[in-house]
Amino acid sequence: MMGTDLLAIEDLSREDIELVLETAGHMQEVGRRDVKKVPTLRGRTIINLFFESSTRTRTSFEIAGKRLSADVVNFSPSSSSLKKSESILDTAKTLDAMDPDAVVVRHAVAGVPKRIADELAAPVINAGDGAHEHPTQALLDLLTVKERKGRIDGLTVTIIGDIAHSRVARSNIYGFTKLGAEVRVAAPPTMIPANVDCLGVKAFGSLREALDGADVVMALRIQMERLTGAYFPSVREYSGTFGLDRAKLRFAKDDVIVMHPGPVNRGVELAHDLADGRPSVILDQVRNGVAIRMAVLYLLAGRRPESEA
Amino acid sequence: MMGTDLLAIEDLSREDIELVLETAGHMQEVGRRDVKKVPTLRGRTIINLFFESSTRTRTSFEIAGKRLSADVVNFSPSSSSLKKSESILDTAKTLDAMDPDAVVVRHAVAGVPKRIADELAAPVINAGDGAHEHPTQALLDLLTVKERKGRIDGLTVTIIGDIAHSRVARSNIYGFTKLGAEVRVAAPPTMIPANVDCLGVKAFGSLREALDGADVVMALRIQMERLTGAYFPSVREYSGTFGLDRAKLRFAKDDVIVMHPGPVNRGVELAHDLADGRPSVILDQVRNGVAIRMAVLYLLAGRRPESEA
Amino acid sequence: MMGTDLLAIEDLSREDIELVLETAGHMQEVGRRDVKKVPTLRGRTIINLFFESSTRTRTSFEIAGKRLSADVVNFSPSSSSLKKSESILDTAKTLDAMDPDAVVVRHAVAGVPKRIADELAAPVINAGDGAHEHPTQALLDLLTVKERKGRIDGLTVTIIGDIAHSRVARSNIYGFTKLGAEVRVAAPPTMIPANVDCLGVKAFGSLREALDGADVVMALRIQMERLTGAYFPSVREYSGTFGLDRAKLRFAKDDVIVMHPGPVNRGVELAHDLADGRPSVILDQVRNGVAIRMAVLYLLAGRRPESEA
Repeated sequence: MMGTDLLAIEDLSREDIELVLETAGHMQEVGRRDVKKVPTLRGRTIINLFFESSTRTRTSFEIAGKRLSADVVNFSPSSSSLKKSESILDTAKTLDAMDPDAVVVRHAVAGVPKRIADELAAPVINAGDGAHEHPTQALLDLLTVKERKGRIDGLTVTIIGDIAHSRVARSNIYGFTKLGAEVRVAAPPTMIPANVDCLGVKAFGSLREALDGADVVMALRIQMERLTGAYFPSVREYSGTFGLDRAKLRFAKDDVIVMHPGPVNRGVELAHDLADGRPSVILDQVRNGVAIRMAVLYLLAGRRPESEA
Repeated sequence: MMGTDLLAIEDLSREDIELVLETAGHMQEVGRRDVKKVPTLRGRTIINLFFESSTRTRTSFEIAGKRLSADVVNFSPSSSSLKKSESILDTAKTLDAMDPDAVVVRHAVAGVPKRIADELAAPVINAGDGAHEHPTQALLDLLTVKERKGRIDGLTVTIIGDIAHSRVARSNIYGFTKLGAEVRVAAPPTMIPANVDCLGVKAFGSLREALDGADVVMALRIQMERLTGAYFPSVREYSGTFGLDRAKLRFAKDDVIVMHPGPVNRGVELAHDLADGRPSVILDQVRNGVAIRMAVLYLLAGRRPESEA
Repeated sequence: MMGTDLLAIEDLSREDIELVLETAGHMQEVGRRDVKKVPTLRGRTIINLFFESSTRTRTSFEIAGKRLSADVVNFSPSSSSLKKSESILDTAKTLDAMDPDAVVVRHAVAGVPKRIADELAAPVINAGDGAHEHPTQALLDLLTVKERKGRIDGLTVTIIGDIAHSRVARSNIYGFTKLGAEVRVAAPPTMIPANVDCLGVKAFGSLREALDGADVVMALRIQMERLTGAYFPSVREYSGTFGLDRAKLRFAKDDVIVMHPGPVNRGVELAHDLADGRPSVILDQVRNGVAIRMAVLYLLAGRRPESEA
């Protein structure tokens, strides 16, 4: 059984992850109905506490909550009033006193959702914290791969991009390795974290080797401002070496699928024709994001108070 | 039967418009009940995708959706992240993958809702695009006139203001002429579009002639920044010649009604005492806006998937 | 019976206040249920019209409305479009034409909610106007004290801080004195209003006397920008003299409770260890805020049109 919060894939057991994926399978079925709504969380309140703006992820959580009949309240503090971590905790505790059934937190600084979870009675769901983790993103990626490939175990998954600064990469590395996949990362040396071996992944400096025999290729979004100077010479050079196109994709398996957490910098991480349609499954990832968030909200916010003791 | 999107009054047949007005009549009846809510769109999701901010129109769509029991999600992308049209489409496709039942789009550039509708599975409703069209505004204006006058056919409707740059004017010209009214426009020459005859309207350079025998007078909101220099000498001069007051209104019929899409620049397009109360029907327009948007959402988002094939 | 609006505690009778507190008691009971939702305001629309941003108060009203099954619509006009009071009223009248069942108004200028209430058919609830009143804050404070002390009558309540510029202070002075408490205020002379005696309170220039035998101490939030120059020499000096800590609190009764409307400037109005846990009841105040707003919305927005005549 999962804990009372969802802060990091690192914390989850294989069984926890499988429980979320299985629950999300039922939620996908709800999403295919004519009336895409179930009364599961009627009378429950979910607060989206987004210190860092992200309309896409916030919308996904909001739709997920509403499909479960929860009341969803968006709370985006103005950054000016939140200089000190003290006021972040005070804001969170104030919201907690309004008795929400879950608080979804996004913050630019790693560890803030954990700090908040330590103080709050309500379950806390990490919607992305700095370069730490983005657990629901990894869960939706796992669901998408499982849906397309029928399994995770034994697959070869190649993640390309700024591994060192990516919470999506970290969460996916934990998720895919826990479910038995072989994970490879490919990036310029400055974008590979020092401890990457400890994470159980193999690092590559060229796409050719990294893609050899891959079942799944995931390109990460590049922060363009990192691409001038310290980390990599230029967008053009990054794109030439690590940008994915159909020519490079030929090193992977014939039935490879291409993933991206979005939004895509077209022509940088992915060639234009790879951003749309097969073998890309980017829109499946988005669709599955709603199902995963429904599952997580159901598992954490749907508990009866008695069972939380 | 209407198409799957509502992009422009220009696209609609007389029958389409009459269907919306008739449906809106039923919705007005819901609005007069004690409990102003029907379960029609329960379990359906409506996304307000407003690239251009407009709290009034967004609120009208939001209330309309909620009165039909739909879940309404507001999505206002930060303009900074949407420099390129490519990212506009990617944003829309991302939202579409969350399986909404309708997407309401407002954008400062003409044609964007059409581009989005071409890519999306969900029905798209244009909530105003540049100087092109604002179809729900024209529909609510038609409903208001029909309610007050009992008919549209045979009426004389005079629209005053910056016709050349007004999506409200364009949509209303199509709407009123399709339903058999005579439409006149009155404005300084720089604010009359070159092709105005092709639209089936008569252009006037003075209010006296334009208002002669009019049943309906609609004043448009003036963009104040256009009133210095190229388009017209000054606010005072515009207001003196084209600003509507009770003296000028005497040229129209005794039972003339005065309309304005809001918000009014008081003392510019309308004298203070004309902005409030009879013969002004401005607040009726606002009230009917909710009924029209309920009707449009019902007709487009309420379809069963089978019937969309 | 209360009037049709809630604009100021000054306007309320003792019976009005007791009715709200009693109703809020029932709402607290709803808040303790597993499913914290009642169908009382189903089909009713509440508009949060916040000209001044306040995510905390807005969230409290939003959660309160949703727990009563109302549809809640947030409307925060961009300040740029609202320079003139004329456009404030036009905005409010436009929203009123959409037939809301209550409009919650916050504005930086005293008196704006009253001006709006005079024009609107819908009940108006003041959520804070300039330095005038913040009636739901006083009501939640009264509820919190009654819950902790079992009564208001005969208690001694000391309010510390910028009394002259605080709507929280004004509303609480009216509320506590109407219910029979003795109210004292303590502040530097520049922060005491000239007419403070007329309000029926005693003013003190030192905490020692002001706190002597107090049952309740309420510290107000200090606007830091007021603390340099005209009003008071420095934050350090204010905090030394009027900042509350456990040493100063010893002058009050042993079972004193400490209140603050939040957010707290820790180390300024309240010592760090007083901001959390007993004797502070700050989070009770927040929790009771939802119950009070449910009660007020129920009493004002829940009326049947017939009974409003």
